This record gives sequence, C-alpha cells and structure tokens, in this order.
Amino acid sequence: MTIASMREARSTYYEKLGEQRLSPLWESLHHLVPKAPQPQAVAAIWKYSQTRDLVIEAGAVISAEEAVRRVLVLENPGLPGKASITSTLYAGLQLILPGEIAPSHRHTQSALRFIVEGSGAWTAVNGERTTMRPGDFIITPTWTWHDHGNPALDQGGEPVIWLDGLDIPLIASLNAGFAENYPESTQPISRPEGDSFARFGHNMLPVRHRVTDPTSPIFSYPYERTREALDELYRNGDLDEWDGVKLRYVNPATGGWPMPTIATFMQFLPAGFSGRTYRSTDATVYCVVQGHGQASIAGTPFAFEPHDVFVVPAWQPVSLAASMDSVLFSYSDRPVLSALNLLREERT
Amino acid sequence: MTIASMREARSTYYEKLGEQRLSPLWESLHHLVPKAPQPQAVAAIWKYSQTRDLVIEAGAVISAEEAVRRVLVLENPGLPGKASITSTLYAGLQLILPGEIAPSHRHTQSALRFIVEGSGAWTAVNGERTTMRPGDFIITPTWTWHDHGNPALDQGGEPVIWLDGLDIPLIASLNAGFAENYPESTQPISRPEGDSFARFGHNMLPVRHRVTDPTSPIFSYPYERTREALDELYRNGDLDEWDGVKLRYVNPATGGWPMPTIATFMQFLPAGFSGRTYRSTDATVYCVVQGHGQASIAGTPFAFEPHDVFVVPAWQPVSLAASMDSVLFSYSDRPVLSALNLLREERT
Amino acid sequence: MTIASMREARSTYYEKLGEQRLSPLWESLHHLVPKAPQPQAVAAIWKYSQTRDLVIEAGAVISAEEAVRRVLVLENPGLPGKASITSTLYAGLQLILPGEIAPSHRHTQSALRFIVEGSGAWTAVNGERTTMRPGDFIITPTWTWHDHGNPALDQGGEPVIWLDGLDIPLIASLNAGFAENYPESTQPISRPEGDSFARFGHNMLPVRHRVTDPTSPIFSYPYERTREALDELYRNGDLDEWDGVKLRYVNPATGGWPMPTIATFMQFLPAGFSGRTYRSTDATVYCVVQGHGQASIAGTPFAFEPHDVFVVPAWQPVSLAASMDSVLFSYSDRPVLSALNLLREERT
Amino acid sequence: MTIASMREARSTYYEKLGEQRLSPLWESLHHLVPKAPQPQAVAAIWKYSQTRDLVIEAGAVISAEEAVRRVLVLENPGLPGKASITSTLYAGLQLILPGEIAPSHRHTQSALRFIVEGSGAWTAVNGERTTMRPGDFIITPTWTWHDHGNPALDQGGEPVIWLDGLDIPLIASLNAGFAENYPESTQPISRPEGDSFARFGHNMLPVRHRVTDPTSPIFSYPYERTREALDELYRNGDLDEWDGVKLRYVNPATGGWPMPTIATFMQFLPAGFSGRTYRSTDATVYCVVQGHGQASIAGTPFAFEPHDVFVVPAWQPVSLAASMDSVLFSYSDRPVLSALNLLREERT
Repeated sequence: MTIASMREARSTYYEKLGEQRLSPLWESLHHLVPKAPQPQAVAAIWKYSQTRDLVIEAGAVISAEEAVRRVLVLENPGLPGKASITSTLYAGLQLILPGEIAPSHRHTQSALRFIVEGSGAWTAVNGERTTMRPGDFIITPTWTWHDHGNPALDQGGEPVIWLDGLDIPLIASLNAGFAENYPESTQPISRPEGDSFARFGHNMLPVRHRVTDPTSPIFSYPYERTREALDELYRNGDLDEWDGVKLRYVNPATGGWPMPTIATFMQFLPAGFSGRTYRSTDATVYCVVQGHGQASIAGTPFAFEPHDVFVVPAWQPVSLAASMDSVLFSYSDRPVLSALNLLREERT
Repeated sequence: MTIASMREARSTYYEKLGEQRLSPLWESLHHLVPKAPQPQAVAAIWKYSQTRDLVIEAGAVISAEEAVRRVLVLENPGLPGKASITSTLYAGLQLILPGEIAPSHRHTQSALRFIVEGSGAWTAVNGERTTMRPGDFIITPTWTWHDHGNPALDQGGEPVIWLDGLDIPLIASLNAGFAENYPESTQPISRPEGDSFARFGHNMLPVRHRVTDPTSPIFSYPYERTREALDELYRNGDLDEWDGVKLRYVNPATGGWPMPTIATFMQFLPAGFSGRTYRSTDATVYCVVQGHGQASIAGTPFAFEPHDVFVVPAWQPVSLAASMDSVLFSYSDRPVLSALNLLREERT
Repeated sequence: MTIASMREARSTYYEKLGEQRLSPLWESLHHLVPKAPQPQAVAAIWKYSQTRDLVIEAGAVISAEEAVRRVLVLENPGLPGKASITSTLYAGLQLILPGEIAPSHRHTQSALRFIVEGSGAWTAVNGERTTMRPGDFIITPTWTWHDHGNPALDQGGEPVIWLDGLDIPLIASLNAGFAENYPESTQPISRPEGDSFARFGHNMLPVRHRVTDPTSPIFSYPYERTREALDELYRNGDLDEWDGVKLRYVNPATGGWPMPTIATFMQFLPAGFSGRTYRSTDATVYCVVQGHGQASIAGTPFAFEPHDVFVVPAWQPVSLAASMDSVLFSYSDRPVLSALNLLREERT
Repeated sequence: MTIASMREARSTYYEKLGEQRLSPLWESLHHLVPKAPQPQAVAAIWKYSQTRDLVIEAGAVISAEEAVRRVLVLENPGLPGKASITSTLYAGLQLILPGEIAPSHRHTQSALRFIVEGSGAWTAVNGERTTMRPGDFIITPTWTWHDHGNPALDQGGEPVIWLDGLDIPLIASLNAGFAENYPESTQPISRPEGDSFARFGHNMLPVRHRVTDPTSPIFSYPYERTREALDELYRNGDLDEWDGVKLRYVNPATGGWPMPTIATFMQFLPAGFSGRTYRSTDATVYCVVQGHGQASIAGTPFAFEPHDVFVVPAWQPVSLAASMDSVLFSYSDRPVLSALNLLREERT
C-alpha cells in the first residue's frame, strides 16, 4: 500500500466514522492529552486609570435597575466573547450610584465582591445587610438571595465601585446554573448588620450550630481586620520569598475556603520586595488595593497601580515585586483543583 | 434622547469598551446566568450493531503501537470537534488485537475501562496487571503509569473491545492536564495479579495503610462480584421505582468514589421494569451489558441492545425501561458536582 | 521555720483543704501526670484447655434465658472485680446451646462476636440474621437490637462458643451507658440473611445510601474472605517484620473502623515467624484461630494454642512468634486513641 | 435440685471460675450495662468566698518552684482521692505570685487556663508568650512545652489566679499519659506575643498552612472579643430558652473544638433569665465570670457568685437562672463523646 492510498483509505474510513459520530483518537491524542496545561486565557492587566472612566460612564448609559447588574465584564483577550477572565472565572467592575438598587435574585454561581472605591453602599444576603468599605471582601454564596443598594445622595450616598468575582464559566461548563428573581426589588431584612460576624467571626460558633453547607456563614471580611493581621505578621518578620506576607480567607466553621469554588487571598509586599517565581494549576485574578509594583507573568512585565486588575492564567510562572508598600487581593479556582486532586504547584 | 440616538450612544460606548477588553454584562446576563442548565450536549445513542464493525476496521487501518491508543471517540453531536460525549466527559471504544501492546504513559486525566467484548487482554497499573473480562470495571487513576496488552493469537489472545471513560474535557477546561510517556512500551511488573484486590478488596485494609489519595487502591472491580450483589438484592425484593437495583462502585479505603472526578454505577432492570423519571445535574454515559429496553431522554425514546452506549446530558429527564432482564453500567461527573456543592436532583 | 513545724503547718493546711474538697496538687502531680503509661491491667492468657470446660459447665449451671447472656468474663488480674480485660475493654466467652435464645436487647456499648467453636447459631441485628461459623467476625453496633439463638438439637444445632468483645469499661468511665430490653425474646426479621453483605460488602454501595453513622453497615465479616486475603498476600510475599501479614477490618462505607470504639484485626504468622517488638498506647486482646506460638509481653513469654485468649495492656512491648502456621484475631481500643489524638506507637 | 443446693453448686462453680480469672456475667450484667448513666461524680460547688483564702494561703505554704504547679485540686466528693471533678476531667485553682515561675514541662494531657483574678502573668506555649487577663481562655495543647510566670512586684506583678482544666482522668483511664520536663525553667521565646492570633485569629490562615493536628493554632481567646460577641448577639435578641446566649470556642483552622478532648463555652444570662432544663452525656464544669444566679442540678439548687466553680455530672438535669446579668465559662468532655458517637442530649 502506498502512502497515498493509505491516506485515501483512512480518509474514506474517517468519513464513515463521522457519519456515526465517531472520530479517530489517534489524530487528536496529543492535543487532548497535552504534556502540560495550555490555557487559552492569556496574561492581561486592566489599568484602573483606563477602566474607571468607562465604569463611571456606564452610570449614564444605563440605570442599575434596567441593567439588573451594571457591570463591565473584564474579558480575557484569549477568550473573546466568553465573558471570562480565566477558563473558570469571571471578573467585572460594578457601579452603584447613590439612591440605586440592584434588584434581588439568586443563582447557583458563587460570587464575591471586593470593594474598590467608595463607601456606604450595601449588600444584603440571607436577610442581613453589610455596609461596603474599600478593601472589604464580601461573599454572596450559591443560591442565596442578594441585592445591592446605595443610600440617596442627600443621605450621604456616593458612587461605589467594586470588583465582582464569580465562577460563571465553571458553572457553565458543568451545566449546573440555576437562577431566580426575587418577587420584589429587595429582600426583607431580618437580622441587624453585623449579626453573622458576631455569631461566627470571633473564633466562636453558636453552641448548637450544625455545618450543613461548605460556604462561610460570615458574609463580610472587613479590611480593617485583614490589614491588622498582615501588618502584625510583617512586623513579626514573617516574609515569604515568593508571597511576601500572604493570608487566605477561611470559612471559620470549617477552616475551608469561604466558598466551595473560589479561593481568596490578601497579601502585603513591602517596598523593595522582589519575589521569586511560582506557578500553579489554579488561575488567579489580582486586584491592587494600594501600592505600586510589577507582576512578571510568563516573562512579560505588567506594572501595577492601585485598583488595577490583572490575571495570571493556569500554570503561568509569576513573580511579584513592589516599589512601594503594596497590598494585593486575589481570587482563584484553587478549591476546585484541590477538591478534584488536580492542584499542582512549582516554586523556583 | 430618542431611542435611535440612545442605541447609537450605547453602540459607541460598547466600542470603547471593546478596546479596553470590557463588555457590558447587561447584554449577556440572561445567557450567562440561565434559569436552568442548557447543555450543548444532546441525548444520543451509539448502536453497537453499527460501531462494532468500524472498531474492528480500525484494527486494519492503524496498529495499536502507531495509534498509541486505537480508539474511536464517541463525539456528542452537540459538541462537534470537541472529542466530548458531555461537557466534562469523554467516551471511546478501544480495540486491542492479539499480540498488541498499547504503550505505557501517564496523565492527570483519570480513566476507566469497561470491558465490552473479548477476554484475556490486560491493563497494567502501578506495577500490577489485571486481566480483562466482559463486565469488569477497571480504573487507571490520575498520574499512574498504565499500558494495555493482549496475548498473541497462539497464546489464546482474541480481539478485546472496551469502553474508555475519561474526564478529558473537564481537565481541559480546568487547564490541569499533564502527560508523560514511559521510556519503554510496558512498565515493570512488581506485584502478582490480584494483589491489590487481596489487599483492599475484602472489607479489610493493610494495618498500616495511610490514605494519601482519593483514588481507589483496587484497580479492577470484577463483574462476577458486581453481578452477584445485584442478583441477590433483586431476589431480596430491593427494586427502586426509578433505578431498579442500582449500586455505585466505591473506594474501599474511604467509601468515596473510585476516582475523584468520575462516578460509576451498575444497575439491574428486570424484564418488564418501567422506571419513573429522574434528572440530575450530573451527565451520564450508559453502556449496556446485557438485555433490551428503552431509555426515554427529554422525551425522545432510545431503544437499547447489548453494548450500545447512550448519553444523558445534565438536567435532562430520563426514564429507563426493560423488555428483557437488563444490566447497565454507567459513569458520570457526579463527584465533581458533589465536591463543589452543585449536585441537584429531581425525581417525579 | 523548722522542717517539723513546716510539716505540721502543711498538715493543718491540708486538713482545711479537705474540708473544702480541695487537695494540694503538688503531693500527687507525679502520679497524676506520669512519665509514661502505667496501666493497672497486666499481661495475661486464658488457656482454652482450661476455660472450655468451665464454659461448657456454665450450660448446666444456668440457662441462656435466665442468664440473659451466658458469658464467663475474662477478668484482668490487675483489675479485680471490674469485669475488664483492659481499662477500656471487656472480653467474655459466651455459650449458646442448641434450642436456646439469648433475648433481644440494645445498649450503647458496641459489641463484637468472634466465633471460636461450633457452627449454626445466629445473631440477629437490625432485622437480619447472620449464621455463625468459626473465625467469623460479627458486630452488634451501638444501640441496635440484637439477639442470639441456636437451632434445636434435632435441627442440627450444636453448642456454639464465641468471644464477646465490648467497650463496657470505656462507656462506664464516660458515663454514656444506656440499655433497653426488647418486649419479646427475638426481634422481627425483615431482611434475608446476607442482605447487608450483598448491599455493602462488594466494594459497592446502594446508590442513594447516606452515611449517617460511623458504624459498619455490614454485620458479618466471614472468615472465608478474610483467610483468602491473608493467604494471597502471604503467597505474594507480603510479610511484615513485626506483624506477619496483618489486615484491619473496615467499614466499607467510610474506610474507617467497623465500630467507633473498637478496632479489629486478623493476622497470619507463618511457621517459623519470629516477630520484632512493638508497643502502642492501644491495649489489645488476641484470640488464637489456629496454630501454635508464643507472645512475649513486657518480657514474659506466653505460649499460645488454638482458642487461647491473651491480652497486651497499653504500652507493653510485645513480639509474636509462631512454631506452626498461626492465625490471630485481635481487637483494641485504637479508634478511641486515634480519634482523641492519643495514639503513640514504637517499633524496635 | 433445691434452691439451697443450687446456690451451693453455683458458689462452688464461681470459686473455680475465680481461679481461672473468670467471672459469671449474669451476676453483674445489670450493673455493667445500666439502663442510664449513673455517674459516681456528684453535683457540687466551690464558693470562691471559701476557696480564695486557701489559694492565697498556698502562696505561703509552698513556692511555685517547689510545687512545680501550685494548684488546689477541686475534688469531686463522689470521687474521693481521685483528683477528679468528673470521671474524665480535672479542675484546679492555680496561684502564681509576682516574680514566680512555674517551670516548663509538657505532657499528653491537654490543658486550659481560664483567668479568674489578677492580670499580667503569662503562659508560654510553642515559643510564644501570652499575657493573662481575667476572662481570657488560654490553651496548652497536648505535648507542647509550657511554662507560666509573673513579673516581679516592682515591675507591676500582682498575684494571679486561674482555673486549670485538664483531661487527666480520661488520659489515665486510656493509659495514654506521657510527660517530660524541659531542661530549663523557661522555654526559649521565638515569636512575639500575639503572633499566633495575628496568623490564625482573624478568619484567615497563612496561605501554605497545613492542618496536621486537631488542636487550635491560637493559644489565647481574649475575653474582650468573646464578650463583644455575646453582647452583640444579646442586643440582636438571640436568647435561647435553655442557654441564654451561648457560644462555643473553635479551632479556626478546622471549625472543631480547640482541643480534641475538651470543649469550652461562654454564655451570657441576662438578669431575670430562668432557663429550661437540659441534660447531656457530657459532664460540665462551670466557672462564674460575673453575676449572681442559681444552677439547679438534679433538683438541688446551687447559688452562684463571681468566680465560683460548679460541676454538672453526666446526664444530670440542669437549669440555669440569673438574678443579675451573668457570664459563665464552662468546659466539658463533649468532644470525646462526639468523636465516639456517644453524645446524647435531652431538652425539656
């Protein structure tokens, strides 16, 4: 058999396969089972100096009520049209103006809010409102009613911008998305603000509390506490060569992640810090709280300033450096990789 | 502002957004956060009467060695070109001829082999060989060296066909795929056949065994045992209105799933069984061991015969009926949905 | 102050303390917080050649019905009057004659039965009867109704003797004992014999089974399976220098111990085996299934023959040797020590 | 056979049994397997008005150094000579005077310190010192070096009294006690005070922390935080009919108990509270932080005032009432009962 006739025979055979919805594995094996991860997502940065104006302009283009959620989605250039910042995660900048309400709904997608700019807006979850302040990390767990609002201008309201982080692409690939609108624009409030933190946030739990759910029972992790911890550990000399001082947020009822699909972190890099290189199978989105520095991702430098957002796709080597004292919030799909025994890390 | 000018303003604004890799959530919210799962995968069946000949023909088209794995992939018509039977799972029919070897490699993708036809071929995992017999369920866990082989014709070898089930699409969407070839075609054998079953398969464990891994330490679940259990429970009157008699395979060291990403089941439907309707967020691939019957999936009937493979996408209602005593093997991504708190089920 | 006057002052002070139910820690600290465990229990052996006749004689002294349980308790000489073989465990030899019934009751104490001699008697647990055969390990979990019986002489009944192992002293020291008699002598039987083994014993579980309880859902671990595993591992060359071939029984729904307070083991020592020395904070009771050999416990040799029972108190060094192929069943309080982070082991 | 001759026969038989270290179960079954718990420990109270003077007097009777630990043990009247307040727990009042040191040692017994009176003394654990203030709850986990000290008078030292709670009787009954003295009177200090709280106490954990141990990584739970939580929940109207406002301390790395054998709680009872009756298989020791009220234990009233200690043995019904706003610390062996599936509770 000549090579040409063999090719032709295979081609005929492949056609018959296609009619039966079959395909020859040997033509795609190397692509399907790669030597190492080859994410379609690419490293990218969204400079707040450029995005902020567009976020503010959205306030003129559409109302929160019409939009339901007035958010600009940060789309990874490697995943065009997919509303994804990584293959599993979504990121968006949300604006809520004084006097507005983003109406109540719930969905199986887990969500985090990381407050970027402005104070005094609120998120309501499970009948309790939490006031937003810059640096706060707030969760709206899977299938919980949640709505956002902002006091009117004459009651001291100011525009508030936060970063939304959700697992929308993951839930889509798992076909596990359900959603529902609340019949009214806001849910009824049944507990005073701070109640869940008092109940669960002080290294104590209600005596008869039963854990029935992997999600954290506290909705807000105030920046004040987080910053206090970072500063004290830095004063104590606890500086890691890769991470600076880095803490992960936990569900105090289990010691696990605050939500079962998204990990969240806060880290401090002192002025002059120049971190070593690390990579991991979880993909990470960073949001700069304060400071100036540079992230090198797969060899490309990205200078960062306050409120910039940048993304490190899976298995891309990253190192962080700071020219001024810097604080970085980040979130990733690490709990997914851990739960499925797929987390791999490499430090060099 | 007229509607036309508002549209134009928005259009201009959307262009500016695009330049900054931003997109307006309000244009895609309903699509991104759907009311209920809308899988791209569709219900489908692969009739063994049609696929078998093509599998056998593959033996003439390419050698096992050249192919590495001589497999026809069952491609879901709703996911063309993706080598996927559901959004997270892969299925393929593999042929190994007498005297052939499918060379040793390892990958982070977890794999199962469900033996369809022929006996006497072997799979080697972790230094131990397991002989394949129809109905056996065999695993090759994440990152374990594995190779397959078949005795020569003159040593009693016969063509062996099995169903491969892997989590290839899931691992791809998580960017967690690593792979490596073994330097030789087969790995060294260090333990006698049956060793892991003797060690872990009898409701006992080695006294100093530490569980360090979610994967089952037994590689083969022989059909003989499985069938014995199903038959005894059926004799004992244990017939569920939805499932007939249905058992799930477990990791005996943890009681969990045999592999952290794929659930496997075997069920018996007596002649005349007409099951009630069920749906779930896990998507399931069925392989008929014996019998005749019908699966109704989202309202469409699919008649099944021995060795047919059919797929029920996520959240599609399914009911099973049998005109003869039937045995069905199935696998799904349930462990993923469970681990991430996303499993939802509905029985009607 | 002279020493004498200081002593007198202390003595006066101690009297005042006693009146207030106080005592000076400094007088007892070394005793209360010892350098290493000092169990009151001592090593001991009960030779079946001596105990068997007394067990049989009990059949003439009292009926099973009058006795409720016709058992001779193996009392550790170091714990006189305490019905304890170790500080946490109880052991007894129970006899049931043809035609007798040991009436149904339940208690929070967990119990095991290890069949020593005779076949055909039964234990009923949770509505299912299990037939007893020598070498079988049977559990009656906490708070489950259980009764024992033996077919009449003319139906083939023969005297059956088994070893009872319970956590009676542990439950007493924890003040957690509850008990109740069933209104009739036997509980109703709702499931055929073997049902729980079919359902849970084959490395499979019912698809909708939820684990709500740490106790094994299988009641009987037949000797046939256990022996098959030991023999195969021995043939495979799996001989440990301390243990020979040793397996622990597991709860197949969790991989944990069959009961939350008692560990059980079976081990094979080939003729000529001379094991190395080991000690552990769990105390262990051994029952010889077959063979001859010697246990050296804290330096004292104890020759063992079939059906002998011997005890190794906590932290006593033990080594095992066999002059003939020997099989030893054993049980200990290891799950208690493990759960409380108190298990310590030493191999020399 | 007459009754007299039967008695004689049994008596002869029992003698033979005794020689073989056997005893007839039927003579002790009801005692060994009681219908409900019958603890030897009894309800009791130690009035601080009576114990305080004796504690202070101990300071004159013996030095901390000579005593190693200058503690008056609270001995349950039902367990004379056993240095036990319940069958599993120990309680003692420890005094440390200005300038004294209680030398460093470690033991497998877990210990808690609950500060009763005085401020400024310290406990060192794992290379970190914690300053004691009234109401603080401090742990010295199993097998950790720990020493206590007090600044000299001229550096502001004052007598400090605390309640020690340990699992000494439990560890004794399990034969799991090991102890060791540190070669010097104090261990070296390697971390600044507050380091472990900064690292683990703020609902965050170090990013690479691995949980290898069930014990809490924070050593001190300051009263200030605890009280803040209780007060806020009381303001929010969270008053339970049995417990008032009651929180349990947790290990923030797991959500479990701070130590694997001892549970700890703090509760607030507002003036006028009259609680309903409750019982449980865990035995509980209470220490009054502030307030006045009454505990009714198994029908007996015990009036309580600040710093009194009282004990509720297992399964004894208890109700609590307060005539002034009261705060009660308590500890129990609940983790032991929970881990072993033996916790039973009843509310009426």
